[in-house]
Amino acid sequence: MVIYFDNSATTQVSEKAAAKALEVMRQNYGNPSSLYSLGLAAEKIVQDAREKAALAIGAQAEEIYFTGCGTESNNWAFKGLAEANRKGKKNHLVITAIEHPAILQTAKALENHGYQVSVVMPQKDGRMKASDLLAKVKEETLLVSCMHVNNETGVIQPIAEIGCALAALSHKVYFHVDAVQSFAKLPIDVKKNKIDFLSASGHKIHAPKGIGLLYVKKGVRILPLLNGGGQEKGMRSGTENVPGIAAFGVAIAEALAQRKIRMQGMQAVCEALCTGLQKEQIEFYSNSQMDENGVPYILNLSFPGAPAEVLLHYLEQDGICVSAGSACSSRKDIFSHVLQAMDLPKERLASSLRFSFSGSNTVEEAQIVAKSLAKAVREIRGLRMK
Amino acid sequence: MVIYFDNSATTQVSEKAAAKALEVMRQNYGNPSSLYSLGLAAEKIVQDAREKAALAIGAQAEEIYFTGCGTESNNWAFKGLAEANRKGKKNHLVITAIEHPAILQTAKALENHGYQVSVVMPQKDGRMKASDLLAKVKEETLLVSCMHVNNETGVIQPIAEIGCALAALSHKVYFHVDAVQSFAKLPIDVKKNKIDFLSASGHKIHAPKGIGLLYVKKGVRILPLLNGGGQEKGMRSGTENVPGIAAFGVAIAEALAQRKIRMQGMQAVCEALCTGLQKEQIEFYSNSQMDENGVPYILNLSFPGAPAEVLLHYLEQDGICVSAGSACSSRKDIFSHVLQAMDLPKERLASSLRFSFSGSNTVEEAQIVAKSLAKAVREIRGLRMK
Repeated sequence: MVIYFDNSATTQVSEKAAAKALEVMRQNYGNPSSLYSLGLAAEKIVQDAREKAALAIGAQAEEIYFTGCGTESNNWAFKGLAEANRKGKKNHLVITAIEHPAILQTAKALENHGYQVSVVMPQKDGRMKASDLLAKVKEETLLVSCMHVNNETGVIQPIAEIGCALAALSHKVYFHVDAVQSFAKLPIDVKKNKIDFLSASGHKIHAPKGIGLLYVKKGVRILPLLNGGGQEKGMRSGTENVPGIAAFGVAIAEALAQRKIRMQGMQAVCEALCTGLQKEQIEFYSNSQMDENGVPYILNLSFPGAPAEVLLHYLEQDGICVSAGSACSSRKDIFSHVLQAMDLPKERLASSLRFSFSGSNTVEEAQIVAKSLAKAVREIRGLRMK
Repeated sequence: MVIYFDNSATTQVSEKAAAKALEVMRQNYGNPSSLYSLGLAAEKIVQDAREKAALAIGAQAEEIYFTGCGTESNNWAFKGLAEANRKGKKNHLVITAIEHPAILQTAKALENHGYQVSVVMPQKDGRMKASDLLAKVKEETLLVSCMHVNNETGVIQPIAEIGCALAALSHKVYFHVDAVQSFAKLPIDVKKNKIDFLSASGHKIHAPKGIGLLYVKKGVRILPLLNGGGQEKGMRSGTENVPGIAAFGVAIAEALAQRKIRMQGMQAVCEALCTGLQKEQIEFYSNSQMDENGVPYILNLSFPGAPAEVLLHYLEQDGICVSAGSACSSRKDIFSHVLQAMDLPKERLASSLRFSFSGSNTVEEAQIVAKSLAKAVREIRGLRMK
């Protein structure tokens, strides 16, 4: 029996999404570029999913472009915008210190092409201050990028405030939001929030791996990252991943329809885990926000005295999957850049675990995890006392 | 009943490959970067597929990098190599006029970054002459790219000759092969043929859409196209498309195991189509090579007097799927750039159809298509005579 509390790393594909992918692989296997009905049917499947995706963020379908993953979406937004503005004078980017590596490393790649990058630190609670980002904006700023929900702490960032402030400036500064951890989970309105680019990924919401999207506001000029056959209106060449896109559409529809009930369920799981740990009288610290500034599906806790990697090992013995830092960088033997940016003491950096939930997780699972965790922490602390 | 003769546009996913994708989506859904066993199992699935892919081209597993599609592989080879050599003095590329748009358009994008591109024409039979490509190589040449099998005509290009000639030069010129239409179908030996980069795609060999690969010769320096979490040894960030990769591995193994029997079957289908048309006494021309210079799974025929798009429409009435030009550009109302480069007369350009086969196609299907096609050609020609 596995208890999977690592849903921010990736999720199990939902039965309906998997069934849809299978159906498309077997039956609707045409190439959307083909002119016969098998091709047109595939094109229609893609278009249906595009409409579902648009609905999730208040966009128009024509503003949604499917990609191979959230990382591609992030790379494309940055590099495609830079390429479109290569002959202009804007050579400055503003990002936050708590972005996903797909943003941090992409910004670094652009530094090699003459861009200056301002990296803005969060407050101690992990939340960015909109005014701190705005303070870095100057005449030369091409793009500001801020994630919606941090993947390690679940802290919600003030994207509406940032977007509206940027839109009120006298010169155009583009705004990109990495919404990989919030898409189809939290309400997002790209129009109200004045967002120019928004990245999302399928496999964080029970669609298969290998599918992502980028919202590009109508009228915004961006060049493709992938040149070729001209798919996605010439913006993203490569034969469309029709089964992945179809399954993404199903997963989005399920997520929107079940948003409230899933959220309540995850809230209950999150609370049960905290309550369980408190009952066990284990000393721990939360690196997440338990109020309206945090999502209930990501909980980052530290257990000083118990190194995260040892805890992981203990939990795994009980069939429990959690992560130390984000999975994407978890094989690197370094402390989380997010928690470091929050200026946490070393003991909390070294002992932090991320628990991330899906709508399928249960309160019973949380209770089991609390017990297993408390036992592990006690044992590890005991060993270290000797 | 559909007769699908458009397997170079895309293929139906094989039952085994689809079942594997489904199994991974449902059960092995871990993130390969995760440290617990569910993650390690996913990592092992990726590694198994990598070994299968390497086997297909005589490479080592560590030289295979999974991507989102063949187009991404092609873009990455060109742009990643250019980026790695940005500070060098090499600013010249040699490509053929009959490459896929993913190469042609990528080379064009690099022209905007100061690259000169020599575009070499094929001979009238659609085959490139190695010496014509070599003649364009100069001190400043960074990369030569030649596809293995042309996607519109099926003509096999002399990649061994080109690769060995480039390797014999006193200065290093990299060699890229777009093998999307030959991977796991024809024998390829990247070592013997001195290939530095090779692109392949899953959905042309009965794996799902959304998965491709790039072979990068060990020791060759190339920078990533996608920056981020450091997957694929930092060369291609983004959570691995594990179901797609797993299914790709299955499809490769099937293709290799059944290579001979599939090839014989497709040869029979190809011959049956030609024989059937001859029996019907319909005037037609082959734009393909029927000997050792062409593959039996792509047959390009022209029916002067019968416009391709009208023929497509007639065939579709009978449930027959073929393509006019390559599917990737089939919605653009222009003649095939490949057939134009072969200097075909306008009547043949305007009336060319591509028939492309899979191992599942039958001689009976070819006979039905020949009949349907002959009827259509006669009717259309008759209408135009009036």
